[in-house]
Amino acid sequence: MAVTILKGTIVSARSPERLDITENGYLIAENGVITGVFPTLPEQYAGAPVEDWGNALILQSFADLHLHAPQYPMLGMGMDLPLLEWLNTYTFPAEARFADSGYARTVYRQLARELVENGTTRVCMFSSLHTDATLILMEELERAGVTGYVGKVNMDRNGAPGLLQETTEESRRETLRWLGACGDFRLVKPILTPRFTPSCTDELMAFLGGLAAKQDLPVQSHLSENQAEMAWVRELHPDCLQYWETYAKYGLWNDRTLMAHCVWSDQRERAAMKEAGVTVVHCADSNQNLCSGVAPVRTMLKEGLKVALGSDIAGGDHLSMFDVTAAAIRASKARRIMDGWETDFLTVPEGWYLATSAGAAYFGEQPGFAAGNPLHAIVLQDDRLPQSRPLTAAERLERCVYRRQPDAIRAVFSAGRKVYTAG
Amino acid sequence: MAVTILKGTIVSARSPERLDITENGYLIAENGVITGVFPTLPEQYAGAPVEDWGNALILQSFADLHLHAPQYPMLGMGMDLPLLEWLNTYTFPAEARFADSGYARTVYRQLARELVENGTTRVCMFSSLHTDATLILMEELERAGVTGYVGKVNMDRNGAPGLLQETTEESRRETLRWLGACGDFRLVKPILTPRFTPSCTDELMAFLGGLAAKQDLPVQSHLSENQAEMAWVRELHPDCLQYWETYAKYGLWNDRTLMAHCVWSDQRERAAMKEAGVTVVHCADSNQNLCSGVAPVRTMLKEGLKVALGSDIAGGDHLSMFDVTAAAIRASKARRIMDGWETDFLTVPEGWYLATSAGAAYFGEQPGFAAGNPLHAIVLQDDRLPQSRPLTAAERLERCVYRRQPDAIRAVFSAGRKVYTAG
Repeated sequence: MAVTILKGTIVSARSPERLDITENGYLIAENGVITGVFPTLPEQYAGAPVEDWGNALILQSFADLHLHAPQYPMLGMGMDLPLLEWLNTYTFPAEARFADSGYARTVYRQLARELVENGTTRVCMFSSLHTDATLILMEELERAGVTGYVGKVNMDRNGAPGLLQETTEESRRETLRWLGACGDFRLVKPILTPRFTPSCTDELMAFLGGLAAKQDLPVQSHLSENQAEMAWVRELHPDCLQYWETYAKYGLWNDRTLMAHCVWSDQRERAAMKEAGVTVVHCADSNQNLCSGVAPVRTMLKEGLKVALGSDIAGGDHLSMFDVTAAAIRASKARRIMDGWETDFLTVPEGWYLATSAGAAYFGEQPGFAAGNPLHAIVLQDDRLPQSRPLTAAERLERCVYRRQPDAIRAVFSAGRKVYTAG
Repeated sequence: MAVTILKGTIVSARSPERLDITENGYLIAENGVITGVFPTLPEQYAGAPVEDWGNALILQSFADLHLHAPQYPMLGMGMDLPLLEWLNTYTFPAEARFADSGYARTVYRQLARELVENGTTRVCMFSSLHTDATLILMEELERAGVTGYVGKVNMDRNGAPGLLQETTEESRRETLRWLGACGDFRLVKPILTPRFTPSCTDELMAFLGGLAAKQDLPVQSHLSENQAEMAWVRELHPDCLQYWETYAKYGLWNDRTLMAHCVWSDQRERAAMKEAGVTVVHCADSNQNLCSGVAPVRTMLKEGLKVALGSDIAGGDHLSMFDVTAAAIRASKARRIMDGWETDFLTVPEGWYLATSAGAAYFGEQPGFAAGNPLHAIVLQDDRLPQSRPLTAAERLERCVYRRQPDAIRAVFSAGRKVYTAG
């Protein structure tokens, strides 16, 4: 039996309100599965090798529940356009490049490496419509040690015909071909991915809903991101009162469904999410960059919805989930200002919980470094920064969220395995 | 005569609307003063040594017109508190440490180095109330090659008595002692710095106004950042209709005055700034972090006010002005959303102009790499990022603004001198 013992200042996000902190503590895993966090080394591990990280912070690694892998090369560009124009001008041509498998290999290898170096070890990710590039993406993630779900995108209308669009038949066929080839992956699994309602015919949506039921597959898509998009969906589906119903009516709306954005989801739509157990993926920077709006995340939490965070590259411009966490907190303050200071903002522990435990919950994990969870962790050394007085672990964590610290991540563990060591 | 010739893709922010781009261009300075940007090497420089940076971007370096040097060690902490509580809980104790000159030396050396490494070569900076630490700060900036203004802070009321507060007499005496010791600095000059109206008695304000006139000194302070602060100022100065008048009535309001924040400055206050030629320093992230509000920057520009950017560490959490630029753009989009999409946002060229040319204007420079300006420049190599197609220089610049690129800054020039080389 393989035992991993990490010693340091252990921060475990057990609830949104509370960080459990164990100074000079021991985080222990057996065969990659956490057995617990202990203030002293339990007797049964006496003599086992301890990785002693001194006073380094040992943190949960991140779960990034919404990002577009093929948009990685356009990260940080085209931000001055609204959503639908941005898709046509920047995004579709960028994604079309992934017809080239060699290009896909190079780009996805770099992406996987950058994710791990930044402490992201769980993802739910959109690929492009290309089956081969999607399989390459899954290979590269698995090789780098990133776990989670990847989806071949389905889009058989309103794409870029001749450049980036499938026929309904191609979409069906390629989806089945892709699923057939996914069997060998251990850490990365398939997730059905209708791009968004305007991209998929009713026929395709019905096919995907059937497939989700038959093969017991999870689903990810976009919801109520932008008002022009919502108006378009109303035109396309006059039979549906609200956007979410265009997913629900095809069986794509359940407790394994991820819906990115939900900026404009009103009380009724939010109630439908809560009722079905859908997870909202909040993408704060993306929503501001594209002038979509500011999602009422704090309100969603209060209402008991499941909420996690997504970098949403390349609508979002930060791959590091430290930045994504800070962005979510900052956006919640913009929202508070917009609401006349009548709504709360996300505190740092709440933001941290969303970026770690709330995302991990989608993968069936318990909050924090709970016993039974696979070991996903970051070792972070922040001692090169100046400080005016001794800091608490909570203050150090807050500084990690906000403050760029080059080379501070010293090691990353994913699914029980050390997948990155600095230097 | 010393000639500097930099070859690369030269981007010059000549106006908020327009980036002048010269591919394979030559940026030339004689004795540290720019003579121009040329598409081919002018004959008179034939045979002179050329620093050929290939296709690297050659950009103006940044001007950060509002930051608090003694808050550098608390960067990224205490963000969950509103302004006035944040001052008392975090800021005043952090600043009090600068009574210790050894501590000041260590921290300010690190700060100066980090500024230069991030391409900030011009600053307007608050020190603490400590004269010796202020002189140390000026020494360290000058040694590192940062130019600009530094102010010993004046605060003789509502500080932290016994920890961080002066008597009126001490404040007067120490200000004069400080000014007397500033004569030897070549690149860093003094600026009068009443902390903000609640921190200074009328007597002290009158003294500073007199000094500004007598010694021809510029002034920096804070204005209309937060509604609780504004209410407090109204209580303290019932004779003044608006906050700005508390500065104006003491002679601290003219075309060399910098006012940070101005989140809540209404049309009348903005007209007073325009009339006097006061420069607004916009600190987007700080205003959101502390839930102060979102300043109507785009409106200020439209009205013809002078606006520049500040990192406002440590209310702001980013020292890099690339981040500060992205934050200003993003905040302008939040503002647009708050305004019901009726106001414009800052475009990337506008944000870039604010972070470079608009800040440099405070130091008497012409926009962009204009002939006659001292050479302040960044050489940036972005070729390690993936790209899906050849990018224009404008796209590369946008990506620099948004995208974290470790070690991309290869060299920095300040006031004609190379002050940083990577690696």
